[in-house]
Amino acid sequence: MTDAEEAIAQAAAAYSNWGRWGADDVLGTLNFVSDAKRVQSATLVRRGACFSLAQRFDTDGPQKGWRRRTNPVHTMTDTGADAALGTQGFPHGFGGADDVIAMPLQCSTQWDGLGHIFDHGKAWNGRPAERTVTSDGDLVTGIETIADRMVGRGVLLDVGRVIGTDGELPDGFAITEEHLTATATAHDVEISTGDIVCVRTGQLARARRDGWGDYAGGPAPGLSFTTAGWLHRTEIAAIATDTWGFEVRPNEFDGAFQPLHQVAIPNMGLFIGEMWDFEALAADCATDGAYEFFLAAPPLPITGAVGSPVNPIAIK
Amino acid sequence: MTDAEEAIAQAAAAYSNWGRWGADDVLGTLNFVSDAKRVQSATLVRRGACFSLAQRFDTDGPQKGWRRRTNPVHTMTDTGADAALGTQGFPHGFGGADDVIAMPLQCSTQWDGLGHIFDHGKAWNGRPAERTVTSDGDLVTGIETIADRMVGRGVLLDVGRVIGTDGELPDGFAITEEHLTATATAHDVEISTGDIVCVRTGQLARARRDGWGDYAGGPAPGLSFTTAGWLHRTEIAAIATDTWGFEVRPNEFDGAFQPLHQVAIPNMGLFIGEMWDFEALAADCATDGAYEFFLAAPPLPITGAVGSPVNPIAIK
Amino acid sequence: MTDAEEAIAQAAAAYSNWGRWGADDVLGTLNFVSDAKRVQSATLVRRGACFSLAQRFDTDGPQKGWRRRTNPVHTMTDTGADAALGTQGFPHGFGGADDVIAMPLQCSTQWDGLGHIFDHGKAWNGRPAERTVTSDGDLVTGIETIADRMVGRGVLLDVGRVIGTDGELPDGFAITEEHLTATATAHDVEISTGDIVCVRTGQLARARRDGWGDYAGGPAPGLSFTTAGWLHRTEIAAIATDTWGFEVRPNEFDGAFQPLHQVAIPNMGLFIGEMWDFEALAADCATDGAYEFFLAAPPLPITGAVGSPVNPIAIK
Amino acid sequence: MTDAEEAIAQAAAAYSNWGRWGADDVLGTLNFVSDAKRVQSATLVRRGACFSLAQRFDTDGPQKGWRRRTNPVHTMTDTGADAALGTQGFPHGFGGADDVIAMPLQCSTQWDGLGHIFDHGKAWNGRPAERTVTSDGDLVTGIETIADRMVGRGVLLDVGRVIGTDGELPDGFAITEEHLTATATAHDVEISTGDIVCVRTGQLARARRDGWGDYAGGPAPGLSFTTAGWLHRTEIAAIATDTWGFEVRPNEFDGAFQPLHQVAIPNMGLFIGEMWDFEALAADCATDGAYEFFLAAPPLPITGAVGSPVNPIAIK
Repeated sequence: MTDAEEAIAQAAAAYSNWGRWGADDVLGTLNFVSDAKRVQSATLVRRGACFSLAQRFDTDGPQKGWRRRTNPVHTMTDTGADAALGTQGFPHGFGGADDVIAMPLQCSTQWDGLGHIFDHGKAWNGRPAERTVTSDGDLVTGIETIADRMVGRGVLLDVGRVIGTDGELPDGFAITEEHLTATATAHDVEISTGDIVCVRTGQLARARRDGWGDYAGGPAPGLSFTTAGWLHRTEIAAIATDTWGFEVRPNEFDGAFQPLHQVAIPNMGLFIGEMWDFEALAADCATDGAYEFFLAAPPLPITGAVGSPVNPIAIK
Repeated sequence: MTDAEEAIAQAAAAYSNWGRWGADDVLGTLNFVSDAKRVQSATLVRRGACFSLAQRFDTDGPQKGWRRRTNPVHTMTDTGADAALGTQGFPHGFGGADDVIAMPLQCSTQWDGLGHIFDHGKAWNGRPAERTVTSDGDLVTGIETIADRMVGRGVLLDVGRVIGTDGELPDGFAITEEHLTATATAHDVEISTGDIVCVRTGQLARARRDGWGDYAGGPAPGLSFTTAGWLHRTEIAAIATDTWGFEVRPNEFDGAFQPLHQVAIPNMGLFIGEMWDFEALAADCATDGAYEFFLAAPPLPITGAVGSPVNPIAIK
Repeated sequence: MTDAEEAIAQAAAAYSNWGRWGADDVLGTLNFVSDAKRVQSATLVRRGACFSLAQRFDTDGPQKGWRRRTNPVHTMTDTGADAALGTQGFPHGFGGADDVIAMPLQCSTQWDGLGHIFDHGKAWNGRPAERTVTSDGDLVTGIETIADRMVGRGVLLDVGRVIGTDGELPDGFAITEEHLTATATAHDVEISTGDIVCVRTGQLARARRDGWGDYAGGPAPGLSFTTAGWLHRTEIAAIATDTWGFEVRPNEFDGAFQPLHQVAIPNMGLFIGEMWDFEALAADCATDGAYEFFLAAPPLPITGAVGSPVNPIAIK
Repeated sequence: MTDAEEAIAQAAAAYSNWGRWGADDVLGTLNFVSDAKRVQSATLVRRGACFSLAQRFDTDGPQKGWRRRTNPVHTMTDTGADAALGTQGFPHGFGGADDVIAMPLQCSTQWDGLGHIFDHGKAWNGRPAERTVTSDGDLVTGIETIADRMVGRGVLLDVGRVIGTDGELPDGFAITEEHLTATATAHDVEISTGDIVCVRTGQLARARRDGWGDYAGGPAPGLSFTTAGWLHRTEIAAIATDTWGFEVRPNEFDGAFQPLHQVAIPNMGLFIGEMWDFEALAADCATDGAYEFFLAAPPLPITGAVGSPVNPIAIK
């Protein structure tokens, strides 16, 4: 493909969900998750095995400062050392530790909120970007609006294992609809309306083995721009990957920047998870052959945030 | 009661769980949650109704600076205004918003980790406080160690509604074992091993109506020191309240500071949730009479943290 | 006065310095400080007595969260407790302490940069606000552009002592040109081109005695809107007060917000210091009768900042 | 040299200033700056030329996360874009920009406070480290205690220009007393009691040209451990360099970590400046041959801080 702007415009027109759930909608594709879907997803809890799909939030993360995205800085305001030395001023042998954190909301495992990306000055549902996300935050689609929504059926598509070599796709590998379909077939699982789809590329396993390198923003396997139709047609509620940016990097157009985000977030209203850790879950799925599970991935309801750190929990 | 230190020492001796799960244990009372318990709890998802039990994380919260606990400061590093004005430097009409946060980990709805409180220089399981929680954080029982654990059966004990007036207990009201038992009976629900018990006092409803006042640290209804035996005997996995500090304030001893914490966290290894929001859930429970539910309350796995903000999700 | 917008427009037209120092100017009234002025100001160092004009930066400051302005949060990343306990991992008895801070740049003693205030969408020198200060900061007049400039002759006008009662002006007291002139006469000091004028109202002394109350944003003594002509005509380089907001509050117009700022910063290019502490200096000046001094008040060169914390040093 | 601990112990004994200014002293070598010295230093202001000796504080600095030292994160809470778009809610065309910062206090140009380094559990003047610097900060020698002190005669020793090649010393070059003396002789300047000595190595110029590389903590030119006697004998008030760590790196002992710090800070009570920018000043000194100047380098009085960012101002 050669003309990013034209391709984006065509995809945006073809796959737009603007107005689909009314002019006031703030939930986007989370509208696809019904109460019945949640009840059905709970029946997937068969063994009671839990998996955290979050990376650790710490100072040794992948961030290098681009767009002021640093790794989290966690500091203590009280410690056990002070407590043991008796300098805290509490009575009757009481001691305490307390702590604070400073971090970009997108520094590690996270959800992109609907206010995270704009297309030609428009946010989700066609709202003017400048009236939606100001310096005061996202006044309309802040992540707190989905505080009680991110629960349902999760499906792991381990594309790295099915299509890749030694369980990993190489950087720059564009995952197409055919790859997604072939993986689902290999897993004997079907994608249905309201699913939260987890796409494992294997890049995180590689970064753990070889060092972070350019994990945060550099070349990576990821979804091809051509999957926009699949993302729309399947009526999934959300999609998450084990990479920094969900879509393939370098992007498939010259001089482009995250064109699939531009279609998916402001035009489709699709929720995207990034930097998730599927390693333990994928190993378990490979063992028992069950690639569907109950998934609870509640964002922190930070008022006006355009994204949120998250500890997604998969239960089988 | 008059002598806090002696009372604490007696309760610590009577209700200690040190060594119960081995010398290396970091899970404390979360050991009570079995896989079978999680499978059973999933069967409580009957209607697919979801409730977020988190307060909003924002600058208008209750914190007043005590122990450097401020409200969260959320700021934008990119906004829709810049995007709409075309000053972001991205190609093909792409625009983005990004944000950062600085906050105490205990500023709003949270879990206390096992490294949060010490008793006479000892942390959970008898470890020396100064070797457990240094300026580098909790080196042993950091909240990341329970990343995949905080899932199970939740039970709401709406003590405010059953025992209080107009659904609220007054500040300074000490909730005893008898109150807890009477509430469970009124709800026709039983507490069992591995439960996450949610105690509603109604104080949050009052603060919402009347203003924060001294919600953060001032007088409050809460558990009596005398409930230590009940907390131990019931083998619950965790307990959470809609108040700042879980136990009654002022504390029941002269010159004391959070004596029940001192027994519960370092000696029992009990996980405590604070500043939870049970309002919507409690209204629903009062309507349908079902006070048990599936609960997923995963902390952010911040390496070495002695607590974590959380968005607990209850599903009925 | 009744019509703020009209009054501001008239004052802006009358006292504008746009273009006075060329289209590319970023220094505003700091252009009034010549090298000769600095040499002359150094001759005012007669006794070698130094005065810090900064309040302490700490958690017990006056901020209450308005516009997300909190007090500074200072936390340790290493402490002497850890060092004494030998848990830091350094060789040969070495130990260290380290710390971090999170703070609004205008939380305590500070300089307003030229990008801090806009008038009808225009920044200093007529620049479009949206091209000058984006989410990336002040791209043109960031405080780093005056890193080596804020040095010269300081003059204290202790209006509180000369005009007030017991050294203090009451909240809401509007300081007029007549008050400023009378104070200078009483001090036997003249204001000249390039001076940094320090106006003491006594409000800080009152806040220290009575508690912060609404020091941050509430009623305060301060400069009358009518002093705009004096600020312009005297060709001063900067002006600082011991109050939160420099000008009188409540403002002198109905429904107005900081109208003198709106004239002074974007239209005059005047640098304004706020929350300075003149107490020790004023006592000294009252004793020796010398109200002029050498003043070094260098901002931290934070790239793109619209203000800076500062520790101004007066030397007599 | 081979035995760091023994060498440090000998130097500490030989050059200790413990008790020299009384048991309660918090000023250390700043006691060497007399009022007369300040008066004399002001006479060095001859041309009125000002030089900021600070690096810019921004996200593109040298820090890489070691000891959680990140580069500053500066974010806007209000911007000109919002102001221009009229979304700020202020009356009469008023608009504003505001900002916050989060940063380690030692991330860029800074002073080490006396609580920054300990020797075998002892802080300056022999105080127990654990009673001096707790999680609440430096309770005794916090940087606020020198708020009005860091003013006096500065002397530049451009060792890079005198001893080095093309104005730069190579990484790992240990500056000895002989180098310092030869440089002073070449500059025709004498070091005297109470001076603030500025040692230029040229490493910052190299980092600017070649990229930061390991500027923060890696190999660097710097003072030899053997200069401890000179630092003590000359009775200087402070010393600053254009490097991350003041002393030569790698250190001159096997397995050592900053041994000269360990002698200088807790034992001598010497103030050390790091990451200063002498480039413009050094060029000026080379031109006019005058290597002495008035220097004001006031730290921010952050209560309990063990260091402070600073914008040192040299005036000639």
